[in-house]
Amino acid sequence: MTLNVAIVGAGLVGSAFIKQLAASKLDVAVVLIARSSKTIVSMDFSPLNLANVDFSAASEGGWTPAQIAEFLSKSPVPAVLVDNTSNEGLAQAYPEFLAKDISVVTPNKKAFSSTIELWNKLFDKSNKALVYHESTVGAGLPIISTLNDLIATGDRVHKIEGILSGTLSYIFNEFGSSDVAFSAVVKKAKELGYTEPDPREDLNGLDVARKVTILSRLAGNLVAGPTAFPVDSLIPKPLESVESVEDFMAELPKYDTDMAKLRDDAKAEGKCLRFVGKVDLTGTPSVKVGVEKYDLSHPFAALQGSDNVIAFTTERYPSPLIVQGAGAGDAVTAMGVLADLIKIVQRGGRK
Amino acid sequence: MTLNVAIVGAGLVGSAFIKQLAASKLDVAVVLIARSSKTIVSMDFSPLNLANVDFSAASEGGWTPAQIAEFLSKSPVPAVLVDNTSNEGLAQAYPEFLAKDISVVTPNKKAFSSTIELWNKLFDKSNKALVYHESTVGAGLPIISTLNDLIATGDRVHKIEGILSGTLSYIFNEFGSSDVAFSAVVKKAKELGYTEPDPREDLNGLDVARKVTILSRLAGNLVAGPTAFPVDSLIPKPLESVESVEDFMAELPKYDTDMAKLRDDAKAEGKCLRFVGKVDLTGTPSVKVGVEKYDLSHPFAALQGSDNVIAFTTERYPSPLIVQGAGAGDAVTAMGVLADLIKIVQRGGRK
Repeated sequence: MTLNVAIVGAGLVGSAFIKQLAASKLDVAVVLIARSSKTIVSMDFSPLNLANVDFSAASEGGWTPAQIAEFLSKSPVPAVLVDNTSNEGLAQAYPEFLAKDISVVTPNKKAFSSTIELWNKLFDKSNKALVYHESTVGAGLPIISTLNDLIATGDRVHKIEGILSGTLSYIFNEFGSSDVAFSAVVKKAKELGYTEPDPREDLNGLDVARKVTILSRLAGNLVAGPTAFPVDSLIPKPLESVESVEDFMAELPKYDTDMAKLRDDAKAEGKCLRFVGKVDLTGTPSVKVGVEKYDLSHPFAALQGSDNVIAFTTERYPSPLIVQGAGAGDAVTAMGVLADLIKIVQRGGRK
Repeated sequence: MTLNVAIVGAGLVGSAFIKQLAASKLDVAVVLIARSSKTIVSMDFSPLNLANVDFSAASEGGWTPAQIAEFLSKSPVPAVLVDNTSNEGLAQAYPEFLAKDISVVTPNKKAFSSTIELWNKLFDKSNKALVYHESTVGAGLPIISTLNDLIATGDRVHKIEGILSGTLSYIFNEFGSSDVAFSAVVKKAKELGYTEPDPREDLNGLDVARKVTILSRLAGNLVAGPTAFPVDSLIPKPLESVESVEDFMAELPKYDTDMAKLRDDAKAEGKCLRFVGKVDLTGTPSVKVGVEKYDLSHPFAALQGSDNVIAFTTERYPSPLIVQGAGAGDAVTAMGVLADLIKIVQRGGRK
């Protein structure tokens, strides 16, 4: 049975996904492709041609999430929403899709790191539709699926610890055990395009906190959200109110000595610095995001480039189960989305 | 819909599996539990009580694979064979099960590393039944699923490289960069119960070769079998014909200088020794198993205990996707089998 699929988002990840989906020959019909201002739709649910996605022919005006859900609800076969955006509004609308038995696949972290109320709606046992979100943490790396398998088979998670931002991985792999100034590494990362246009969006740790929220919740510790636990921002306090990116970058070197002292203290213990997210369920559950010190023999110390790494310490894996590799990038993010969609197709689109 | 499940093998892995399955509350009915000489069966397909598996009440006499397949073929709902043995005969009989639309889940490597003919029958596109075998490589570590996802989403595997034997991982982690004699490490591994009763079954490399055969085939390189490519045995040639384990262990120290020389050569290059399996598809496909040298900064050099590690280098992961952790043990092997069974249940037991 062919499933009907709506794809929202035709940016870098969205385009990579469409290319991979077309090549995969997966038995689905794409019936809607939307970007913010334009929507291509096949009103009779005949499959759109993925080899020739032409927004120039589409009429102006994006569809609202409610309109897309309404359209898909008329599908004669199970339908799937693939959300390749990082849109907050669409994320908040997932329950509308699920209520109409439309499954959801997405790399968009927003819904999963939002309120507990939304989380509970997404994973309500009475939902017939499926929700897959591998690429919300570590892109296509098998992180969500591994954690879900551990839990489903009755393992007990003791600790989850990971370097979950490609940007901060790069910055600390360069800075954490070298002699270079922190601001110089941030500047280089920005020039290489590894940071957001405003590097503070990486340095504030919120992206990592969102991912840690998701991991903590999947492990059974329902934290209220990414601001409900300690997150060490790498933005010096006095620079939080600076307006322009240029001014921020110009001011940042003034705080290099603080970061250098942290590093020197670590070095004196034979350790290096890494920016990690941690969930510790061994006692009273604790969740935090920030700079930690690691022995040079620790797997996190050997990390290179902008790779992610995650270590699951569990009852069955006292020596942790580790997954490592590129945790960002269009192709690997799209791959995680497509692998999820394949699983939904294999399940016939419904529980 | 409840699926009907037959479990063959009630040894260490089998018992761990039954315990995990009972705790999981998975919607399946176990209708047959067999070990070599006894079979407990529910002829009317009413579920057996997993909390009280009592072979003493079972009549003597094991069922043949054909008998089990015949019984399951009468199941009114989709049926699954869980093979928790390392039995060759049962492995060869999987096609009989698949022909009757009975799915197969197993950690048993035998079928998957046997002939290409058998492989093709297992993965024939016309099969309605499903075959899952995560625990054939690295126990519950997400290795088979990860490789399958990479392939299914259109990635191209360049290289697969891994330490895939817990026993040889331990032996080389102890020996590979230390000063201890090779025979002393083997003796210690044997005393700790890390080796087979006859350590030559580990040292001959065949177990690793079987796993590499499976990985190579999944990546599209259909090697004829584990003896169709170079495998460096760690058993010194003159000791291949020694009969008793005691004589072998007594003779092994005579060859310590050979292994020490290998290690010294590696040390001189700043490297350590590891026993790995390798699939290289970058040019003419090549597959091999044996001792390799690694930089001390390489992830394989930092391995500890008896952990496994595998690195997938692909088009999308030029810096490899790495999975690491315990690759042997009853609980983690059973976990891989149960996670597979859950996926079959989610798919309704059929393609």
